[in-house]
Amino acid sequence: MTGEFELIAQLAPFLTGAEEGIAVGHGDDAAVLDFGERWVCVAVDVVVEGVHFRRDVSSPADVGWKAVAVNASDLAAMGARPTAAVVGLCRPADVGTDEIEALYAGMRAACQRWGLRLVGGDTVKAGALALSVTALGEVEPGRAVTRAGAKPGHALVVVGSLGAAAAAVAQLQAGAEPDPALAAAHRRPQALVAAGRVLAEHGATAMIDLSDGLGSDLGHICRSSEVGAIVRAIDLPVADGVAAAAVALGVDVLDIVCGGGEDFALLAALPADAAEEAARAAGAAEGVAAAVVGRVVEGEDATLELADGTRRDLAGMGYDHYAQGPVT
Amino acid sequence: MTGEFELIAQLAPFLTGAEEGIAVGHGDDAAVLDFGERWVCVAVDVVVEGVHFRRDVSSPADVGWKAVAVNASDLAAMGARPTAAVVGLCRPADVGTDEIEALYAGMRAACQRWGLRLVGGDTVKAGALALSVTALGEVEPGRAVTRAGAKPGHALVVVGSLGAAAAAVAQLQAGAEPDPALAAAHRRPQALVAAGRVLAEHGATAMIDLSDGLGSDLGHICRSSEVGAIVRAIDLPVADGVAAAAVALGVDVLDIVCGGGEDFALLAALPADAAEEAARAAGAAEGVAAAVVGRVVEGEDATLELADGTRRDLAGMGYDHYAQGPVT
Repeated sequence: MTGEFELIAQLAPFLTGAEEGIAVGHGDDAAVLDFGERWVCVAVDVVVEGVHFRRDVSSPADVGWKAVAVNASDLAAMGARPTAAVVGLCRPADVGTDEIEALYAGMRAACQRWGLRLVGGDTVKAGALALSVTALGEVEPGRAVTRAGAKPGHALVVVGSLGAAAAAVAQLQAGAEPDPALAAAHRRPQALVAAGRVLAEHGATAMIDLSDGLGSDLGHICRSSEVGAIVRAIDLPVADGVAAAAVALGVDVLDIVCGGGEDFALLAALPADAAEEAARAAGAAEGVAAAVVGRVVEGEDATLELADGTRRDLAGMGYDHYAQGPVT
Repeated sequence: MTGEFELIAQLAPFLTGAEEGIAVGHGDDAAVLDFGERWVCVAVDVVVEGVHFRRDVSSPADVGWKAVAVNASDLAAMGARPTAAVVGLCRPADVGTDEIEALYAGMRAACQRWGLRLVGGDTVKAGALALSVTALGEVEPGRAVTRAGAKPGHALVVVGSLGAAAAAVAQLQAGAEPDPALAAAHRRPQALVAAGRVLAEHGATAMIDLSDGLGSDLGHICRSSEVGAIVRAIDLPVADGVAAAAVALGVDVLDIVCGGGEDFALLAALPADAAEEAARAAGAAEGVAAAVVGRVVEGEDATLELADGTRRDLAGMGYDHYAQGPVT
């Protein structure tokens, strides 16, 4: 099967880019519609059983939460304020009414957490459990943060810690009982909406949420901004427990931290003189780790610089769910 | 499995109704967000293989078209002008890249037909082919037409002809080759967006699109508006070929016309003195049949009045896709 990112490129001709009334078209974390004095962001993300969750690991309420959180995270990455959401739900015959109610309860809890109102839904019987949530948000006109504004000399900031969800999935795939704290990151991801607003206010020039992993998502910023990037491994905010899990599993912690997905941390480029204060303020707004982790450079490659001075190519360290299934 | 309409009622506590910033909450054809000078409608409808289409009957482009059309029809029923759409697509392993491209081509064609821009999509592998489209539209502030404004004495208008898609599905279910013209209504439904605008401009007090069938959908208006309704069978605009198909299948044509779904005609209530002209203008705007078909009365029952004066209960003549599968 064609990889996800290749498929997205093939489908681009069928989608609409920026034009009259559309401030940001397809290909970013969210599209942005220009309604004059109001700019409305639109994000859509699908979570599917066997790809994004397993029913023996995540409760129905967890699944509902996650379906909303991943979309709120897309809004966060635009610097947007969440407004409203709707859901299209595919329901297999073995999912009972009580489980559907629990899914909705989880969606409602996540919506309340991030200021979304769940204003509509369509539930249809289908062969696989899937939730397609569309989340709407608002940004001030002209203030949406896309993936395209990073410039050489800008600093790279990560807000939120890395690797926890991927470490839990690696433990599951290895047949081990996942560490509860790591599993919580997989089951109940947090969208850093307040941090996204703070980074935007501090002049973020490009931003993305780390849904597919740092390697892959930094690659999106590099391609959209037509720049390269160098990330210092030593400065990455690694989640507690990830290093120990990596050792126990016999895998390189950097593959989990840079190649795993579902962190829903935010990666932003900012002018270098604003970066330290932006990271501090954004981390404080959420009570999460935050750090200046690298810099934007000329070129097109995203590179990971290790403490000993050796370098690794970050491209290909991300997560493509057509190439691999993280949960099944 | 719990029926669709019962399930919707059970899920209502998890959804948001009208409140600050939300002009119309869940439970209508679309929600309406109040952005001050701009009101934005949000509709979400999922189409699923085996429920809404069969891959041996509908081409990938047909499926893409239909996924957009059913949402454009929801916007039409609010009197809205379509703006933009996004899609969450569940893709089974046996659906190739060329078929995904064809799905997107069908979506794009339907979007162009009704003024929608396809600004985003998420494609995820899954066990069943499903498309969850969210469509956005605009209405003038204060001018959204809900299901709740019908009053006794108002006239009922249908714009668009009835029964074609349901007749095609009945032929399929009977193992017969569907009539090409009827099958086209099933494969490529038309959203009556221009008619919806005309009906709104003529003072429609309640409106719904006939996705589930006249019996079921008129019931929604009756419940939301707290009224009853009487429909004259003789005045219903029956699609060409439906009566002949019913005779050949040995079924009552009224069961197809009132109980079948997927007509995507519009049903509206209007002040009686405006109804004839509204129907004429709305039909002319689309080049489709339109008629005044009945009246709103006190009470809560939707009744079908036959030419010989006998009456049938329209409730239960609609389509509930949890209770029956129309295509499989």
